[in-house]
Order: sequence, then structure tokens, then C-alpha cells
Amino acid sequence: MIVADLQTPALVIDATAFTHNITTMAQARPGSSLRPHVKAHKCTALAQSQFAAGHTAFCAATPKEILGMAHAGLGDDLLLANETLDVARLQAMAKITPSVTIAVDSDETIAVAARAGIQRVLIDVNVGLPRCGCRPKDAGRLGDLARSRGLEVRGVMGYEGHAVGVVPRIERTAICEASMEQLAIAHRLVGGDVVSAGGTGTFDISPIPSEIQAGSYALMDTAYSQLDIPFRQALWISTTVISARSHYAVGDCGLKALGMDHGLPTIADHDVMLCSDEHITFTPAARIGSKMMIAPAHVDPTAAYHDVFHVADGPGLEAHIIDAWPINLRGW
Amino acid sequence: MIVADLQTPALVIDATAFTHNITTMAQARPGSSLRPHVKAHKCTALAQSQFAAGHTAFCAATPKEILGMAHAGLGDDLLLANETLDVARLQAMAKITPSVTIAVDSDETIAVAARAGIQRVLIDVNVGLPRCGCRPKDAGRLGDLARSRGLEVRGVMGYEGHAVGVVPRIERTAICEASMEQLAIAHRLVGGDVVSAGGTGTFDISPIPSEIQAGSYALMDTAYSQLDIPFRQALWISTTVISARSHYAVGDCGLKALGMDHGLPTIADHDVMLCSDEHITFTPAARIGSKMMIAPAHVDPTAAYHDVFHVADGPGLEAHIIDAWPINLRGW
Repeated sequence: MIVADLQTPALVIDATAFTHNITTMAQARPGSSLRPHVKAHKCTALAQSQFAAGHTAFCAATPKEILGMAHAGLGDDLLLANETLDVARLQAMAKITPSVTIAVDSDETIAVAARAGIQRVLIDVNVGLPRCGCRPKDAGRLGDLARSRGLEVRGVMGYEGHAVGVVPRIERTAICEASMEQLAIAHRLVGGDVVSAGGTGTFDISPIPSEIQAGSYALMDTAYSQLDIPFRQALWISTTVISARSHYAVGDCGLKALGMDHGLPTIADHDVMLCSDEHITFTPAARIGSKMMIAPAHVDPTAAYHDVFHVADGPGLEAHIIDAWPINLRGW
Repeated sequence: MIVADLQTPALVIDATAFTHNITTMAQARPGSSLRPHVKAHKCTALAQSQFAAGHTAFCAATPKEILGMAHAGLGDDLLLANETLDVARLQAMAKITPSVTIAVDSDETIAVAARAGIQRVLIDVNVGLPRCGCRPKDAGRLGDLARSRGLEVRGVMGYEGHAVGVVPRIERTAICEASMEQLAIAHRLVGGDVVSAGGTGTFDISPIPSEIQAGSYALMDTAYSQLDIPFRQALWISTTVISARSHYAVGDCGLKALGMDHGLPTIADHDVMLCSDEHITFTPAARIGSKMMIAPAHVDPTAAYHDVFHVADGPGLEAHIIDAWPINLRGW
């Protein structure tokens, strides 16, 4: 079976680009210096490839991702890089994988984690993105509070999400370094071995983090492809042209098969005009019944719409299908 | 159990607003004058409510939606309001629900439908939206071609998707009427009893369609809420505040629980600053651990991310959960 034989729309991984990405990152950030983020793909089979490349610690954004990774035997060192107040979900994580580490950034999240039987935490520090994380100057007090509740405080984390997508390296570096200075202040106050930060866009910029939380590097998307980073587009969506006029054509892959928060997807040698629920309109036209390959603008919300990654032995419609990886960590 | 007890993020239907919407539409467009579009909710349990209100014909955007509706006993008169070249899926639809009607807009789609054993088609006409549909002047030729292949041509369809979201009624009406003139031209050339068009934003505007393909009216979203139509917001997403600073707070509902193509969602009395994968940041702040209700900007891609609608007996966090409707028509 080849890619062109798949029912459409179908999510396809080019295994050659994927292997390049996994290998390149494992050389740059070997072993525990990378903590792959599973939110980008929500797939334990893909995580197995990251594990095989030497990364045995993972991070996740949802309890469901943590539980699924533990069920799949990938629970050596899992980090929920996110806050939760849900006692039942915290208890479930503590039960299935007692070594799990949870991000905390407030008295409330520390109290709930301790009550639920969580043993290890990181103090989550706000480093400039208006999202979770305490003020750097509050990190020491929270670390002390957590220890007083019997929690092991492994260190700090902080996500410079406002830096990772900035295209000019000099600007990206400046924002990242300012963020990492904030994280270093917090780390001096908290202590511990772990300084967890970063993403695909900053994996090679700052020397401060002990580990980088990168996820998108494995599959990539057109937003990250604008950056000067050594990863290749490995994720595609195949579509069938279902309608055509003289000046445009329509494929059967719409915004319910894509993430739209980073804008329209891309088709080589064509301009995408619009996406609606189940359609993509592009110009110039293509032959009715022909297949096309679409590159998504944002990998994370795209994968979250699909049931399976079809793995192909190369790029394009003629590549052979060699595996199917269930996207089994969807939901919460 | 009340809404505030649900694990978050959770998709919640306010049954009072939902019932108002179903009743209001059934009065305005009784029986077969409405063909509810299941793409908006992808839920056969919700479709049962539409059936109970007197609408026995439905339309869908994907083969999976057609097959699921037929399996659920809702296959009296199903329309795939979309083109497909997939012989296997067409055969599956023809087998499970022989009365299914398929949209066709080209020689190719007619040939494939006939070959797959489809019996009934509508000629899909482009009425201004750059998407599927033939030119109105080509509709007669395609109707004749379909009949020559043994297909029953029930009439025409055309979707004025460029009109349905236009807020000023006078502008919406002008665009809709221009579109319906195009559809009327095609109908005169094709014949048949069915003139299928429209959506929630134009359900009460044009007298030309014999049936309106509306879906969003049942649950609504903040985009459609800007229009002067008599439907109420019935769909909400509950979230837990997981982090707070003095000037903003963060909830555990991000863009993987929402459709983002219509922009940011809404929280009453707050301004939403940003959404990332699993977070919503809003101002002013709220108490850590408190629950909030979010109104999505676009119902269709929001529902497509979730497994279940939790049905509550009213609005807000204190309403009682009275049912759970699986979102069972996801995918393709």
C-alpha cells in the first residue's frame, strides 16, 4: 500500500524526515538533556522512537497523556508540565507512576498535590509568557512550602513560549536569554537538580536549562519551518481533489483535520485560499480525483484531531506505508 | 452531579437553551423544510432530538457521519452535502442506506457515484463561495448526464457560506438573494423537487429553498450569536482556574478543546488574552480552583475535539447533569 491509496484526509509521517529529526535532536541534546513533550503528537508509539533514541524522561500537558505514557511502559520519569487542581487525576497519576513529577506554582497546587499523594514537584516559574508560573521572587517560598508538605522539590521549570516561534535568531535569543535569567534567579532560590525549559525553537540557544521540553521537532510544521533549525517537515495530510473549476480546486481536508490557530496550511506550488470544516480551496486548480499533500501550520492541534499516524517510508504520494501509530493520548 | 463537578475541560449543553433552539427552528421551518446538518455536532443522540422535533431528513459532510446516522436508525433520507471520489465509502453508504442522496458537481463525481451503486443525487451548484459546486449554467448538462447513468436527480443544492455569517441583515439578505438567484437558474435547468441551501444565518431569509441545511442553530457559538437570529448559546465548556496572578488567571481549556478559526472564545465579564494548547489566559483574575464557563467561537470544530456532550438542566455551574451524549460521528 502506498500513501496515494489511503482514504483521505489521512495524517502521514515521512519516516525519513522523522528519523532525521529524532537523530539530529538526540545528537544535539542526548539522553536526559532532552525531555520530549508528548503533547505535540499524543502517540506512545512515536514516543517509543524517542525512548529508543536515548530519552527516557518525558513531559506532558494533560493527566491523560501521563497515564497513557505510564500504561505504555514509558513511565521512568514523567513530568506533568502543567498545573492541576484535580485530586482524582493526581491520585491516578501517583498510583500508576509514583515517580511522576508535577508542576506547581501556588499554595493551592502544592496543597492539592501533597494531599493526592504526589511525591515530586517542580516549581513552575513565569518567565514572560502570560500563562502559568509564579513570580521568580516567589519561587523560593513555594519551594520551602512544598518541602514542608513532604514533597521532593526537584528544581524549577519555565516556558519561554513567547520566544520559541520568533523567526530572527538574534531576537529569539534575546527573549530566551531574558527569560532564562528569570529562571536562573528562581533556581538559586529553589535549588534542586532540574532546570526544565525550552522548546523546539530554543533547543540550541540557552545553556541554562538542564533539560529541554521540545515536542514539535519530531514532526514539525510550517510555523517552525520558518526558523533556522535543523528539523524537516515530517508530517503531511493527504487529500483528494473532489471538485475543480478553471482557476481553483477543492480538497477533502478542512479545518477539522488541521489546527488553524497558526493560520492556513500549505500545499507545494499552490496557494491555499481558504479552509472550511471539511474543505480546502487552493489555486491553481488540480485534476479531480488526484491526491495532494498538505503541510499543517501547527502540529499539536492537527494531531489531536486524528486517530492514527500512517507511517510512510519516504515523502510524497508514492511512498510505501510501513506502519500505523495510534494517536492514543487524545483528550484529558 | 452538577456542572461544577465535571472534570475539566468539559463540553456542556444547557438543555433549556437547546430546547428553545430546537423548538424555535421547528416552528419556523417545520418537518422537511429543515434538513438539520449533523456536521455541527457529530452526535446521533442530539440528532434524535431534531428527529423528535419533526425533521426526518438530515445532511452530513462526511461518509462517517452518513454511516453513523444510518446505524442509529436515522437513515430515512440522508444527504451527503459534499463530493467524494471514494468508491469504497460510496458503496458502504449505498449498502447501509440505499435511499442516501449524494452531491455531485462534475462528470467524475457522477461517474463514481453511478459505479458505486448510489441511486440518488443532487446537482451541487456554486452560488458564490469558492468551494464545491458547478457553474449554474452547467447544472442542466450534469443533471442530464446523471440521469443517463441511471441516477435519480432529486434537484439542486448550493451553499451561500459567504452570506451566513454576515452580521447586518440587509447585507446578508443581499448576498443570499444573489446566491439564490443563481441556484434558481440551475434548478430551472435541472428540475426535481429539492432545492437545498442555507444555514443558520440565512434560515429565515430566502423563500427559494425547499429545505434549509442548518446545523449550528441547535448549539450556537459566539460568531452566530452576533446575528439577529432567535437562537441562544446552548454550548459551553467548563474550565478550572489552575493558576492566577494579580492581573490575570489561567484555565485548563486550550485550543485543543476549541475551534480557533473564528478567533478567541468568550468568558462573561472577562477578556480572553490568549489560548495555547491546553490553557486559556483571561483578565481580570479569578480564584485558583474556581470553575468558569467558556462560550466557543465556532461550534463545529469545537465539538469535533470532544468525546461527549454533558447535558445540564440549565445554564451555569450549578445546573444538574441529566444526560451524556457521545460525540460518535467524529473522523471521516
